[in-house]
Amino acid sequence: MVKRISLKDIAKKVGVSTALVSYVLNNKKEGRISKEVAQKIKDAAKELNYTANQIARSLKTNKTFTIGLIVSDISNPFSSILNRIIEDEAEKSNYLVLSGSSDESSDKLWKLTRVLQNYQVDGFIISPAEHSAPLIQQLQEQNIPFVLIDRYFPEIKTNYVTIDNYKAAYEGVKHMIENGYRQIGLVGLDIALFNMQERRRGYMDALKEHDLPIKEEWIKRVKREHVKEAVPKAIDELMALDEPVDAVLFTNNVVSTQALKYINTLPIRVPDDLAIVSFDESDAADLFYAPITHIKQPLQEMGRLAADILLENIAERQEIKQVKMEAKLIVRKSTERKGKLGRIL
Amino acid sequence: MVKRISLKDIAKKVGVSTALVSYVLNNKKEGRISKEVAQKIKDAAKELNYTANQIARSLKTNKTFTIGLIVSDISNPFSSILNRIIEDEAEKSNYLVLSGSSDESSDKLWKLTRVLQNYQVDGFIISPAEHSAPLIQQLQEQNIPFVLIDRYFPEIKTNYVTIDNYKAAYEGVKHMIENGYRQIGLVGLDIALFNMQERRRGYMDALKEHDLPIKEEWIKRVKREHVKEAVPKAIDELMALDEPVDAVLFTNNVVSTQALKYINTLPIRVPDDLAIVSFDESDAADLFYAPITHIKQPLQEMGRLAADILLENIAERQEIKQVKMEAKLIVRKSTERKGKLGRIL
Repeated sequence: MVKRISLKDIAKKVGVSTALVSYVLNNKKEGRISKEVAQKIKDAAKELNYTANQIARSLKTNKTFTIGLIVSDISNPFSSILNRIIEDEAEKSNYLVLSGSSDESSDKLWKLTRVLQNYQVDGFIISPAEHSAPLIQQLQEQNIPFVLIDRYFPEIKTNYVTIDNYKAAYEGVKHMIENGYRQIGLVGLDIALFNMQERRRGYMDALKEHDLPIKEEWIKRVKREHVKEAVPKAIDELMALDEPVDAVLFTNNVVSTQALKYINTLPIRVPDDLAIVSFDESDAADLFYAPITHIKQPLQEMGRLAADILLENIAERQEIKQVKMEAKLIVRKSTERKGKLGRIL
Repeated sequence: MVKRISLKDIAKKVGVSTALVSYVLNNKKEGRISKEVAQKIKDAAKELNYTANQIARSLKTNKTFTIGLIVSDISNPFSSILNRIIEDEAEKSNYLVLSGSSDESSDKLWKLTRVLQNYQVDGFIISPAEHSAPLIQQLQEQNIPFVLIDRYFPEIKTNYVTIDNYKAAYEGVKHMIENGYRQIGLVGLDIALFNMQERRRGYMDALKEHDLPIKEEWIKRVKREHVKEAVPKAIDELMALDEPVDAVLFTNNVVSTQALKYINTLPIRVPDDLAIVSFDESDAADLFYAPITHIKQPLQEMGRLAADILLENIAERQEIKQVKMEAKLIVRKSTERKGKLGRIL
């Protein structure tokens, strides 16, 4: 029922040309008109409740200037920080980001992509859920512009931006070995994703190459629905072994935050009784009494690059781009050289 | 160009009735058909790339079964956890949530609401940005179903779900006074929002009612764009005063996380040299060497209630609902009774 406001109405109100109004509201590069006039035009558009902008622009360009972002769980800081970086990068090109969580369900991922496709987003950035390879394959066949982030499927040729998860885990474990730790466990998520396999593979190769044992009972996988109970249980089990671990790699930030909260309540000391390396930065890792050595993913660069690759693909179909970045090992107190061995070596 | 797949095609493939396919894909209550058949239908729909569901349902009900959620900054855990709770609650009614960050800009909030309106979301949940009262007023006048969360404008009669911020701050400060602290400072965001004003008012009233001084130089407001530098500066200033504070209320979780990381590097001890109460739960508050007494907002209930109120309003226009919940003060080590005074009292 609302009367449709046109650019002309706004131009009339401010006393400028329709072209100038169009120029300002379509947010082309600044510098050619005064900030004051631009502000007047924006204020008038708001006052008149101008909504035609988006639709008109869409009709003209056949674009909606929106991106769909699907992460696994927006309440995980890794995802929410990445979300924010992508929003900021997209905004530079006047794109808005609409986000949702797949909750590791390929069904929900499918629903979200369908809804966003019906809404005609111009493309997707997706951190794919477990078992969602067929859906990703389908998007690829439909020629929908998208970029995978953090996770990808090696068997499907898609754009992706990720880190070298194998190398990151390998370097973290190697660092602990070099600092004198010998019985190194791993606690991660029980999830069928390639990046998690890669982290386990890096862990195992580091042990193998240093002629250290790999023991089944040192490797714990917890269900993500039960991290709160399963992580303490896994740690109790690792410490109660006849041959307990003296170090541990946490391959996921949700696992490591839960673990640190639990270890904080135990009579064991980090790093004397247990050295720790964890994936990803976190407030928990920073504020633990022995700040945690961690594998820092280049989130800024990953988010920006994913957005840029997507926007290029929206503008014009590009060659497939597959980017593996290097993570950085940030060494802190939780992996300090082991006392006894330090003297022997 | 894709051939439109109908319910009939799916029914034919699985060998069931079209009505049954419709029943399953529209996700009505379970229990009337076997899980196996339901799964077969879903698999066939996926395999055939069935996309008409949403559009067909929309045409029939005049609804899109989507909600727009606009928070101030998705990378703030308060917002991302709330986002997740709202997603989960909406999903129970088969609704999807699309989210975006306003970045405390009323301009960006305006853009997001416009885009989501063009996409015909059925309603909004909004944590409004600074200076966005006119926009909220406009949404209200347009009869668009929406619920404000966390923040609201007392001068506009809208649905909202929030906590009693005045009382929460009052109780936090009263608790420190009762435990022997007398020079109590406040560090918060420099932001023109009613909930922040209420927190300051609660702080001041608690001091007044206990005949304690309120000093201009004990109240610090930092810009949210500069928390990383401004929070350490504010703390240095508070501790360098001729009459330094012996306790502090952090009125925002972003401020408190930065503050705890900084205080952790200083030679002052919590609570002996400085007692702390902060708003909101956080990993930082949990893992600080003296776990932090904090004001816990009932996020689960707030998120659920906001979603429920919105969905009721989408189904049928309701009376305006304004809900102020009680926050809970979780007392921990950071506000332990002050040593000296503890002996005197």
